[in-house]
Amino acid sequence: MWVLRKPYLLYLGDIQTKADAKTAFGLRDWCCDDVLAEWSLPGCPVTLDLPRLSPTAAAAAGAGSIVVGVAVTGGRLPAHWQDDLEAALFAGLDVVSGMHTKLSDSPRLVAAAAQSGARLIDVRHTGGDYSCATGRKRSGMRVLTVGTDCALGKKYTALALTRELVARGVDATFRATGQTGIMIAGAGIPMDRTISDFTAGAAETLSPDAPAGHWDVIEGQGSLYHPAYAAVTLGLLHGSQPDAIVLCHDPTRQTIDEYPNYPIPDLQDAIDFYLAAGRLTNRAIRCVGLSINSSALDDAAWEAYRERVSQQLGLPVCDPLRGGVALLADGLLA
Amino acid sequence: MWVLRKPYLLYLGDIQTKADAKTAFGLRDWCCDDVLAEWSLPGCPVTLDLPRLSPTAAAAAGAGSIVVGVAVTGGRLPAHWQDDLEAALFAGLDVVSGMHTKLSDSPRLVAAAAQSGARLIDVRHTGGDYSCATGRKRSGMRVLTVGTDCALGKKYTALALTRELVARGVDATFRATGQTGIMIAGAGIPMDRTISDFTAGAAETLSPDAPAGHWDVIEGQGSLYHPAYAAVTLGLLHGSQPDAIVLCHDPTRQTIDEYPNYPIPDLQDAIDFYLAAGRLTNRAIRCVGLSINSSALDDAAWEAYRERVSQQLGLPVCDPLRGGVALLADGLLA
Repeated sequence: MWVLRKPYLLYLGDIQTKADAKTAFGLRDWCCDDVLAEWSLPGCPVTLDLPRLSPTAAAAAGAGSIVVGVAVTGGRLPAHWQDDLEAALFAGLDVVSGMHTKLSDSPRLVAAAAQSGARLIDVRHTGGDYSCATGRKRSGMRVLTVGTDCALGKKYTALALTRELVARGVDATFRATGQTGIMIAGAGIPMDRTISDFTAGAAETLSPDAPAGHWDVIEGQGSLYHPAYAAVTLGLLHGSQPDAIVLCHDPTRQTIDEYPNYPIPDLQDAIDFYLAAGRLTNRAIRCVGLSINSSALDDAAWEAYRERVSQQLGLPVCDPLRGGVALLADGLLA
Repeated sequence: MWVLRKPYLLYLGDIQTKADAKTAFGLRDWCCDDVLAEWSLPGCPVTLDLPRLSPTAAAAAGAGSIVVGVAVTGGRLPAHWQDDLEAALFAGLDVVSGMHTKLSDSPRLVAAAAQSGARLIDVRHTGGDYSCATGRKRSGMRVLTVGTDCALGKKYTALALTRELVARGVDATFRATGQTGIMIAGAGIPMDRTISDFTAGAAETLSPDAPAGHWDVIEGQGSLYHPAYAAVTLGLLHGSQPDAIVLCHDPTRQTIDEYPNYPIPDLQDAIDFYLAAGRLTNRAIRCVGLSINSSALDDAAWEAYRERVSQQLGLPVCDPLRGGVALLADGLLA
C-alpha cells in the first residue's frame, strides 16, 4: 500500500492547458488542507491560484512530496522537468507521479533519490505485494461505490459521501483504489495493478479492522459489466466485504465506453447482480441508492429522471454535484 | 504466453515419494508422446518407468527441455539439484519449473542460461505482458470448465474432454491456464499471475480466432464462489467468451477448501450464476453438464447421486475417471 507524505507541492511543469492539470485541480479541490503550494516552469500559463514555492522553499516550509499533477500526451515525463524534480529530491521531497512512464525509468532521478533518501513513488504501479484474501469478516462498516460502467463518478461519489459523513460527525475514511484517489487520500492501492490472485487480498489490506461505528468509504473500480475490467471489480467487491453499495450511473450512455457492442445494463438488474456477487463475503450487503452523473440533463429532465428512477427502484437517487449525497448518507446510517 | 520446447526430460532430483512427483506422473500420463525420458539423482527411489537419460544424452536424443516435475516442501529448489540443471542448460535444454522459487533466483543457473542461450522458464510466473480485453467475438467454439470450488477436477475434465473430442475426429485444443496444464500442453498462461486489469485480455490471447468447427477446451481456474480467487475466475470467463461451460464439483465438500465459513453453493444456483456472468461476453453461453469428482462414493452411491442430480438439473452428470465424458462431448456437439 502506498502511503504518501503530505503536504504537497503541486508541480505543473510547462503544460499549456488547464485540462492537462486535471489531477492537480482535483487535489486542490479535494484535499486543500494538504496542498501547500504550486510550482511550474517559466512559460507555464496554468495556475492553481496557490502560493508559488520552489521545491527547496517548499521543503523548508514543511512539504513532504512534490506531486506531478498532470496528464501529458503519451504519459511520458518531459526531460526538461527533471531539473525541478531532482532539486526536489535533493531538498528531501518525495516525488509522486501518476504518469504511465515510471519515475524509476529515469537514471538521473534514481541517482538523486538514492543520494538523498527521498522516494520515487509511481502511484499507477502496485505499491507492494499482497496476500490471498482470508475472507474473514472484519470489524467496522464499509460502503463501496460500484458502476454500470467505468469513469462515471465512483471516485467523486465516494469522496462526497466521505465528506457528508464526516460533516455529520461520523468517523469515516475514504479508501483510494486508483491513482488520483491515492494522491487525494495520501494512501491507497491501485487495484487494477494487483496480481489477480491477490486482488481481493489487496482490498482486505486496504480496509482493515476498524471501530464498530466507523465507515470506510471505498472508491470503486471498473464495472461487473465491463468486458475487460470486471475481474478488478469483483476482487475489490469481495475483498471490501461492503455492508452497502452505491450504484453509479450516467443516463446518457447506451453502451460501455469504448465498447459499442456492450450495452449498459438495466439498473435493477445491475443492483441485483452486484448484490448477488457481494453476498459471497457479506450476507448483509444492501444497496443504499444511486449516484447519477446528470451533467447532460437540464434541471427539468433531471428532476423527472430522479423521480422516475427513485420510484421504480424504491431507492434514493442523487447527483453529488446537484443536491449532494445526503440521502445516501441517510441510507448508510439508517 | 509461455511456449515450451518439447519433448521433455522429466527430472525428479532425489525426492523420496511418488506423491512428490505428481506433476511428473501427470505429464507422463497426459502427454506421453512428448516425454522422452526421466533423470534423477542417485538415491532417488521414485521412477516413472521411462528410459533414463542424462541431460546431455537427452539433448543429443532431441529433447527440448528438462522439466522439474516435482513439488517439494517449501517449494524451493534444492541446491544439490543444480549440477544436473546446469548440465542441462549447457547441453542446450531449457529448464522448466513450476516451483514457487524462481529459477532466475539462482545466479548459477542464470549464468549458465546466459552462456548457453537456453531458457529458464518459471511457469508459475506470468510469461509475458498482456493487453486489456477487446470484448470482440472470436471465431471458433470454446468450452470452459468452471467449479463450485478450487482443486476439484477442472484441469482433468478439460484434458479428458479434449481427448474425447479428438478421438471423435473433432479439431480441438486444450488451453492451459495453470502450471501443470501449461507443462502438459507445452503452452499457456498462468491466469492467476496476470495483472487484474489484463486478466480477461490474457484469456483472449490464450484462445485466439480459430476455424469454425474448432473447439478450444479451456482449463478453468478458481471459482466464482471463492473469496480470494473469484477475480481470476471472472476475468478468465469473460475473456474466454465460452459457448459452453462444464460445472465441476466434489459432492463431499461442504465448504470451500480452507475457507470453512464459505459454503459450497447449490448446483443450480452455481450454474445460473456462471451463465449470468458469462452472458456478458457470449449471449449464447450454455451449460452442457457436470463433471463430478466421485472418488469418495462407492459404485451404488455414485449411480444414485448421478441419477438424482441429472434428473434435478436436466443435465448430463459425468465423472471423467468413472465412465468418461462422452455425454459432455455429445452436449458440445449437439
